[in-house]
Amino acid sequence: MVSLSLSEFASYANKRVTSFMRSYVSSLDDDVPSLKQGLEYALLIGGKRARPLLVYATGRLFNTDDKLLDHPAAAVECVHSYSLVHDDMPEMDNDTLRRGNPTVHVKFGQAGALLIGDTLQALAFQILSDPASGIDPASCVKLINLLSHGAGYEGMCGGQQLDLEAEHKHLALEPLKLLHSKKTGALIRASVLMGARCGGERDPEVWKVLDKYSRLVGLAFQIWDDVMDVTEDSATLGKNAGSDLKEEKSTYPSLMGVDEAVRYAKKTASEAKDALLSIKGDTSILMQFADFTVSRDH
Amino acid sequence: MVSLSLSEFASYANKRVTSFMRSYVSSLDDDVPSLKQGLEYALLIGGKRARPLLVYATGRLFNTDDKLLDHPAAAVECVHSYSLVHDDMPEMDNDTLRRGNPTVHVKFGQAGALLIGDTLQALAFQILSDPASGIDPASCVKLINLLSHGAGYEGMCGGQQLDLEAEHKHLALEPLKLLHSKKTGALIRASVLMGARCGGERDPEVWKVLDKYSRLVGLAFQIWDDVMDVTEDSATLGKNAGSDLKEEKSTYPSLMGVDEAVRYAKKTASEAKDALLSIKGDTSILMQFADFTVSRDH
Repeated sequence: MVSLSLSEFASYANKRVTSFMRSYVSSLDDDVPSLKQGLEYALLIGGKRARPLLVYATGRLFNTDDKLLDHPAAAVECVHSYSLVHDDMPEMDNDTLRRGNPTVHVKFGQAGALLIGDTLQALAFQILSDPASGIDPASCVKLINLLSHGAGYEGMCGGQQLDLEAEHKHLALEPLKLLHSKKTGALIRASVLMGARCGGERDPEVWKVLDKYSRLVGLAFQIWDDVMDVTEDSATLGKNAGSDLKEEKSTYPSLMGVDEAVRYAKKTASEAKDALLSIKGDTSILMQFADFTVSRDH
Repeated sequence: MVSLSLSEFASYANKRVTSFMRSYVSSLDDDVPSLKQGLEYALLIGGKRARPLLVYATGRLFNTDDKLLDHPAAAVECVHSYSLVHDDMPEMDNDTLRRGNPTVHVKFGQAGALLIGDTLQALAFQILSDPASGIDPASCVKLINLLSHGAGYEGMCGGQQLDLEAEHKHLALEPLKLLHSKKTGALIRASVLMGARCGGERDPEVWKVLDKYSRLVGLAFQIWDDVMDVTEDSATLGKNAGSDLKEEKSTYPSLMGVDEAVRYAKKTASEAKDALLSIKGDTSILMQFADFTVSRDH
């Protein structure tokens, strides 16, 4: 197999999961057209599809057929998308711009956005439990368990709550890391482990390595997000820049300065790559992804 | 086995699922105490637990051990509870009183309520996919599929959206029935079918009967809810009475008059009971539940 570059693989994964999600939503009945349009808008308007990419890239380590990875990849993107819809709402970040487009509540109203987000979360579990996935039931249950933990109290939602409470407050490094390990890290971890678990049970040592990789990459990803919020403009980000500063949020740059945050991000990404060295199989996409997390400009 | 009265069984089911949910939430880590308190408030402040009751009652038809039904019963109640939290929010029904207590957003703020609801939905799927449930993987996946369909686009969320669009608008009977079959009916149907499916695959004829029963009982339940909104006071309901009228919602009483709505509800409940006649096994709780839907005062 010829090794793909990350950008080639990312483009492949993006097209693949987007087309899968498009046809999945389109196959829903037409009883509630406005809600269906809302799902399409929230899911299909764009996005990096970083989480589906991780599902496919990790699955590839075990030669898992991409067809088997479509449902988990789409499910994790549904959860990510719902979280963006709800995070942008007036009672949360009150953002009006996302991926260069009006946010969902600007387009569909606040009640509409609330429901679109709720529906997307249910859709994630509907997709994962779909008999058409071809995934054996025991793996299915495990994937659902990974995703629900990544999305819920111990994961993303818990992180969001810590984030809310961190506004206008100075956080030390450890609480900030805990916040982000939940808010962003948990779903990135779920993506990697879902990609690994999809084809069958894995060697515990390999599982541990992928767990470590996913935690480090998640951390690097978030530090870099914070860095970009102060170093890039809104046009490049596709969302309003400087919003962390505006909301007086504790961030890695505010805690350690921009230069040190950049160094910390790069060191973390490098540790993520080191963790992969013991793994047999084509790790090149996961390696490149670790580099990408700390070099991207949006 | 001695047949229990509905109120004895309801009290048993209520205590059972409430105690299960209490210990489940309590077993979560303490990283985000405020969110944990929010989950406890939303789940444990009270409620009829009608959906868990249906899970246990239908499971009993097949002599399924109640221990096996705890996870599905709690999961469906988590989905119901999250829907109440989000429905009460200012952008939706803007209710300040629920079960005689301040609604979640009054107590935890609007952003808090958004997150508590989101977390409860994830918790439902976390509970259902928990290896401790003792449910075989194939049944687990089917239960998750039933719940996600009941909760999502084709079910409750779709119904909520139709409900939003129905405000200040005159709906005919069929669109109103479609709205309610989704908004309330879908989760009631999921409860009955989850209770049936939990112990194993069922005879297609029995499945069809339970499907029919659940749809009719769901309809009767909703017609009666609408009736109570105009005939009972806030103290009896434990929430603000007359809210449908205030929001100029289409309801069965507004469409056909209160007396005719009462007759329609009772006829529907009676058809639900008739559907059960072909089923072997102790249907007494399900029979009594159908009667209860159209005689309760809250």
